[in-house]
Amino acid sequence: MNDTVIAADLGGTNLRMAVVSRDGTILTRARRTTLSDATSEVIVSEIVDAANECIATIGHGKIEAIGVAVAAALDFDAGILKNSPNLPSLNGLRLRDQLFERLGLRAVIDNDGTAAAVGEHWLGATQGTKNSVCVTLGTGVGGGLIFDGKPYRGIDGTAGEIGHIGVEKEGYPCGCGSHGCVEQYASATALVRMAKELAKSFPGSPLASKSDVTGADIYDAGLQSDPLALEVFSIMGAYLGMALADLVNVLNPEIIIVGGGVAGAWDLFIGSVSREIVRRSFREPAERVKLIRAKLGDDAGILGVAQLAFQR
Amino acid sequence: MNDTVIAADLGGTNLRMAVVSRDGTILTRARRTTLSDATSEVIVSEIVDAANECIATIGHGKIEAIGVAVAAALDFDAGILKNSPNLPSLNGLRLRDQLFERLGLRAVIDNDGTAAAVGEHWLGATQGTKNSVCVTLGTGVGGGLIFDGKPYRGIDGTAGEIGHIGVEKEGYPCGCGSHGCVEQYASATALVRMAKELAKSFPGSPLASKSDVTGADIYDAGLQSDPLALEVFSIMGAYLGMALADLVNVLNPEIIIVGGGVAGAWDLFIGSVSREIVRRSFREPAERVKLIRAKLGDDAGILGVAQLAFQR
Repeated sequence: MNDTVIAADLGGTNLRMAVVSRDGTILTRARRTTLSDATSEVIVSEIVDAANECIATIGHGKIEAIGVAVAAALDFDAGILKNSPNLPSLNGLRLRDQLFERLGLRAVIDNDGTAAAVGEHWLGATQGTKNSVCVTLGTGVGGGLIFDGKPYRGIDGTAGEIGHIGVEKEGYPCGCGSHGCVEQYASATALVRMAKELAKSFPGSPLASKSDVTGADIYDAGLQSDPLALEVFSIMGAYLGMALADLVNVLNPEIIIVGGGVAGAWDLFIGSVSREIVRRSFREPAERVKLIRAKLGDDAGILGVAQLAFQR
Repeated sequence: MNDTVIAADLGGTNLRMAVVSRDGTILTRARRTTLSDATSEVIVSEIVDAANECIATIGHGKIEAIGVAVAAALDFDAGILKNSPNLPSLNGLRLRDQLFERLGLRAVIDNDGTAAAVGEHWLGATQGTKNSVCVTLGTGVGGGLIFDGKPYRGIDGTAGEIGHIGVEKEGYPCGCGSHGCVEQYASATALVRMAKELAKSFPGSPLASKSDVTGADIYDAGLQSDPLALEVFSIMGAYLGMALADLVNVLNPEIIIVGGGVAGAWDLFIGSVSREIVRRSFREPAERVKLIRAKLGDDAGILGVAQLAFQR
């Protein structure tokens, strides 16, 4: 009985893959490095190669399908990538068909933010809820929406781009072509930029004098109550709160969950997020919405696309 | 056979009511003035009185239900008004039960923005579409969402508050308690305020020297190419476009329709709206979304809540 699927999360730097059983257990994993300037042929070959590694471990007969979550706008029904800012060579790629041809497996592809929302709804923080917003704070800011228990993808599958809600009218330029998107204030990349920008205002901060500051450095400094780090997380939280307040007013969600690497610094920014939501949203939906951490960590997208692969 | 419903749109200044047949024909109308400081007893009596006028015309036996659209956050399932900024005495009112008791008619109440979206989906600009956003530009800015052909109300029925998307981080104070909401830049009220604020920069404008300027004055001046009026509509359109760009990125809607009194000035602001959407949204959903005028005018809410009354 073919009671497992291969599920992959294809990002700008890594391909993470796992074989997942029907109850969400991860049976084995494979990993490859992806280069953002690689051709689509190379990237597809990496996926196929990692999948074959999984197949060798589990056995082809036990695998029902393959699901791939990608940081891209895509046509979910057709399985075609449309706009993949981190892996631009993939634009236009018929990934679903290519994986079917090369692996002999039914394939499903989905946006990574939507996949993470599905994963958290299946096995994580939004289990049993009806309407949820899932925000992922990493190199960028991703998002996924679950309405009435089902992923909401919009008319072409590009919905959920929470990272590109505007929070600063003429703000910092964004990779999407706009400027002032919340991604430019609440991602790991943004934390580093803001720490550099603010360094001169905090001459006593050990963080301010550090070169090549990383998101992890800012987090560590925040844990030590470094004033620059605390200010950066406070600003970051306020901007994230502004974007989430818009969603509270427009979507009246039952729950908002925040995941991704930056969510590890939860205690350093969540007060600021909540304050802006209360300040900017209608009282009723602001009081109603639960704001909690995502539970599945890096595996949210893999588990979500695994569930989608089982379903289709 | 009871093949009609009474449908009402209860606003801060007027109660508009009609008897609507199953195919959406309006058979008769009634109207009352509502005072924003009236008690809930007085307002309910006005509704009952107007409904009795309709019943006298049509006959009680022909009327299946009554539907009321209100500019309020409400519990749709329980038929209770929660937060009604324009008619604050209604907060907490069990309007559905009161109308049933006093009229002997099954009653349905809904938010006016959602009702307008349902009306336009039934008989107007969004007929046959799957995912739509309906924006109403009047004294305030209202909104309604249709996902998968059905009204989306969120977990407590307060969803669709498009007028309270933030577009100016520390902008003009809003009646909702926040500040910088798009309602403060794209409503009729906002047009008047912005015309006053900008008057001194346009000394040659006939509009600038006019006292007690109204929205209609600004519209008329715009038609005469008054530079102040054109600037006000350009700014207004840009702010509206910012809010809609957020929705294009988050919801990937098939269509956005704009109605309400201010939409009459369509040609004066829509270029500015489109420009901001293109500038700020992802290319794919920005190219996909249709941006058109609502079709049902003031009757959108009445027709929408009529359809809801037939359905329940």
